[in-house]
Amino acid sequence: MSYERAVPTYCQGDHTFNVPMSLFANNRQNLCERLQKVEELPKNSVVLLQGGSQVSQDSTDRDLTFRQESYFQWCFGVSEADCYGVINVSTGKATLFIPKLPEAYRVWMGEIHPPSHFQAKYAIDDVKFIEQIPDALKEMKTGTLLTLRGVNTDSGLTTKEAAFDGISEFNVNNMILHKNISECRVIKTDLELQVLRYVNRVSSEAHKEVMRRVRPGWMEYQAESLFQHHVYTHGGCRHVAYTCIGATGDHCAILHYGHGGAPNDRKILDGDMCLFDMGGEYYCYASDITCSYPVNGKFTDDQKAIYNAVLKANRAVQKALKPGVSWVDMHLLADRVQLEELKRIGIIHGDVEEMMKVRLGALFMPHGLGHFMGHDVHDVGGYPEGGPARRSEAGLKSLRTARTMEAGMVLTIEPGIYFNWTVIEEALQNPEWSKFINEQEIRRFQNFGGVRIEDNVAVTEDGMEMLTCVPRDIEEIEALMAEGRRAPAPPTGTLLPSDKQ
Amino acid sequence: MSYERAVPTYCQGDHTFNVPMSLFANNRQNLCERLQKVEELPKNSVVLLQGGSQVSQDSTDRDLTFRQESYFQWCFGVSEADCYGVINVSTGKATLFIPKLPEAYRVWMGEIHPPSHFQAKYAIDDVKFIEQIPDALKEMKTGTLLTLRGVNTDSGLTTKEAAFDGISEFNVNNMILHKNISECRVIKTDLELQVLRYVNRVSSEAHKEVMRRVRPGWMEYQAESLFQHHVYTHGGCRHVAYTCIGATGDHCAILHYGHGGAPNDRKILDGDMCLFDMGGEYYCYASDITCSYPVNGKFTDDQKAIYNAVLKANRAVQKALKPGVSWVDMHLLADRVQLEELKRIGIIHGDVEEMMKVRLGALFMPHGLGHFMGHDVHDVGGYPEGGPARRSEAGLKSLRTARTMEAGMVLTIEPGIYFNWTVIEEALQNPEWSKFINEQEIRRFQNFGGVRIEDNVAVTEDGMEMLTCVPRDIEEIEALMAEGRRAPAPPTGTLLPSDKQ
Ligand SMILES: [Mn+2]
Ligand SMILES: [Mn+2]
Repeated sequence: MSYERAVPTYCQGDHTFNVPMSLFANNRQNLCERLQKVEELPKNSVVLLQGGSQVSQDSTDRDLTFRQESYFQWCFGVSEADCYGVINVSTGKATLFIPKLPEAYRVWMGEIHPPSHFQAKYAIDDVKFIEQIPDALKEMKTGTLLTLRGVNTDSGLTTKEAAFDGISEFNVNNMILHKNISECRVIKTDLELQVLRYVNRVSSEAHKEVMRRVRPGWMEYQAESLFQHHVYTHGGCRHVAYTCIGATGDHCAILHYGHGGAPNDRKILDGDMCLFDMGGEYYCYASDITCSYPVNGKFTDDQKAIYNAVLKANRAVQKALKPGVSWVDMHLLADRVQLEELKRIGIIHGDVEEMMKVRLGALFMPHGLGHFMGHDVHDVGGYPEGGPARRSEAGLKSLRTARTMEAGMVLTIEPGIYFNWTVIEEALQNPEWSKFINEQEIRRFQNFGGVRIEDNVAVTEDGMEMLTCVPRDIEEIEALMAEGRRAPAPPTGTLLPSDKQ
Repeated sequence: MSYERAVPTYCQGDHTFNVPMSLFANNRQNLCERLQKVEELPKNSVVLLQGGSQVSQDSTDRDLTFRQESYFQWCFGVSEADCYGVINVSTGKATLFIPKLPEAYRVWMGEIHPPSHFQAKYAIDDVKFIEQIPDALKEMKTGTLLTLRGVNTDSGLTTKEAAFDGISEFNVNNMILHKNISECRVIKTDLELQVLRYVNRVSSEAHKEVMRRVRPGWMEYQAESLFQHHVYTHGGCRHVAYTCIGATGDHCAILHYGHGGAPNDRKILDGDMCLFDMGGEYYCYASDITCSYPVNGKFTDDQKAIYNAVLKANRAVQKALKPGVSWVDMHLLADRVQLEELKRIGIIHGDVEEMMKVRLGALFMPHGLGHFMGHDVHDVGGYPEGGPARRSEAGLKSLRTARTMEAGMVLTIEPGIYFNWTVIEEALQNPEWSKFINEQEIRRFQNFGGVRIEDNVAVTEDGMEMLTCVPRDIEEIEALMAEGRRAPAPPTGTLLPSDKQ
């Protein structure tokens, strides 16, 4: 067990990354230092967080495979459900509170470990039982409990505020913690960057394996399945960071394809583009990578043209990204490059400045250029109080942050060009947009779908660091896919009842 | 798309099973016929069910991959979230109510289909929007709405009763539906059995693939990953029916190993037993199969002895199972066979009748012999009103049903022998049990873990049908594992940062 080593770490076997528990001690210290500077901080403040709960499938006893709540994970790195944690803001001392398990647990669920086990496993100052929370808080002379209450600006959902039997005996303040801990999460530490590099590498390798093996005739979900298997078995990622988007053909234009109502269930045809947006998650650190390429391994001229337009936008942003630039400007830069390229290809015509004014870019890229990434694939802190507000213009309104870049921020750069035909049909009816569109040219792309090129990057002191490591140039992609096509095809077959076993 | 065929079906590509939508029409008809016989049925009763809701990971916008709620699925077979359905009990006419989607849906989630699309896809009599529920109910002269309210006897959780804006205008009765629909779900139709056969075959093949490929040095979760990949890519199973139990070594004694607190993260050592309890789920139909074998492919004498004891119990139950027998008696039969064998092996001694009286069997098999299986891996209907009550004795109290067998019931048969050492240490202190135990002999099994052999079966008119198709005899298992060991080993490697890419 990893926690029996000299330095307590999380890992999933020798072939996976060792995450030292000091990562979380470091996070807690950063949080305390930030809180200590808060003017209105009550005396003897203690942070109180409630961990994620084990959830069932509807009313059944089928437990969904547990994944820790992200704020709790960021503070404590604890994999078990139904815990609490507190941090004394003045001293930084952290205490984990675990449930007292019934005797039957050891038959059904495993050994019942004492608090000392978790203290060593997670390198936490102290571990007690949940029923001891009130006494422990009194013992540490708690003045005010800082609880987590705030709205996630992507989902609109409110965090679940901690509560325990006896909390009414304490002063509770829920106005301070959320904004400060979210702000801490925005700037990744060096230790966090190491994990994000690792999970990006794991997910990159899985994307490369899919590139090598995918063929016309596959079902989209077979790419999803292979990706998930690869990040789990080679990278120790039990979860993916989000439901895999295994879009092909005209499905590539559906930005969040892959959900229950559109579950990657199309057969991939020769000539189709693939848009595979998939990312593994290691110890609750996300990756979020999109690769776009033709299923048969050879780009057509049209596919090359659109792909290279998106790639040019991606690289322009990479080049411009550094502390001090506005993320909105990065979005506009990508838009501008893509419009210029679409004009060069002949799909649109006219003055690019005019196109920018009417936000024509959003016709082809309706989503935002990218988002923060960390414990959550769409990480928190995009729109803090006092920061730049959400814009209202098409495309820009979908940005998950409008902030000025700072070193330590981790984001996705994911420009894209999509041909969503019902949307384009409408645009052709809108004189403000249709005047720019070459209707005959664009009709050739009716079933094209789209291209997205999504990398994960960290902002550095003087630029950015690329975390993703997949082939991006067309020649590199075609070479890797050709390599995969020289390998023997994996066995196929059916498990249908008509078969011989 | 499958629903464009003459017969609307669900499938996941040509290599997967075609489920005709008549399966659900048939289920609805069975429900209506049953309800029509209910004496206290109010006039003009209409069944109202609310489908499962899309759920997020905590407060984030990360959607958990949707899986339909099982009662709703049993009635309608609808894969989309956030729907309602009603069935007119007198006429059998079914209406599906779908959410009206915002315009932005087609950019982010996919095409917005009209009601006629779902009517054809699911072969439902009528499809309307959710906002039309009150008017539609009035139009069909609804006397009373039958809503679903009842306790799941495995989880203790209550079903989520349907509610919609305007329900207060209607009479609602929540006392009738749950017991009757649960009873319908207990007896599987021929169409349902076909799907259960298919998903068992898919999961059996995946188990066989794991047997061929597993090696000492693997992490337990690599078996989980391979299993999940196999059922998805070859069988179209996006979900597994429950979190995979990838237990090895002494973890085999932990009955529900694999959860968040014990996530299949042990390295498998040469000589270890594997206990892999894994089942795919196809279109919300479960399978639940356990295979136990030594990771190195060769049983030791001790491993053979325990394995064959469990296999003998499994086969004794198979032979005895038929309509009219009590499931409690089947459990006791398995217990008796296992005790006789443990006595023969020399681990225990004394009179088996005396052992049965003190429930010594529960020391080695603390769980129930098996459970209903269908849409839920632990399917509903185990303890209906007026049926045999839950027993209080050790082992028997864990049975998920105590019912008398009927044709059409689908169950698991899963005897097991486990050496949970903390439990055995206690038993050695308990004179009522310790007098039967040969302490020196049992100590040899301290790190053995355990063996479970779990098959899925359907009760037929005169016996049972085996749905599972994995090797069970030791010679068959060793032959299959030897075959896998002759194949070239898959490439290994690490994705750690120190590696060359
Ligand atoms: Mn993204
Ligand atoms: Mn089972």
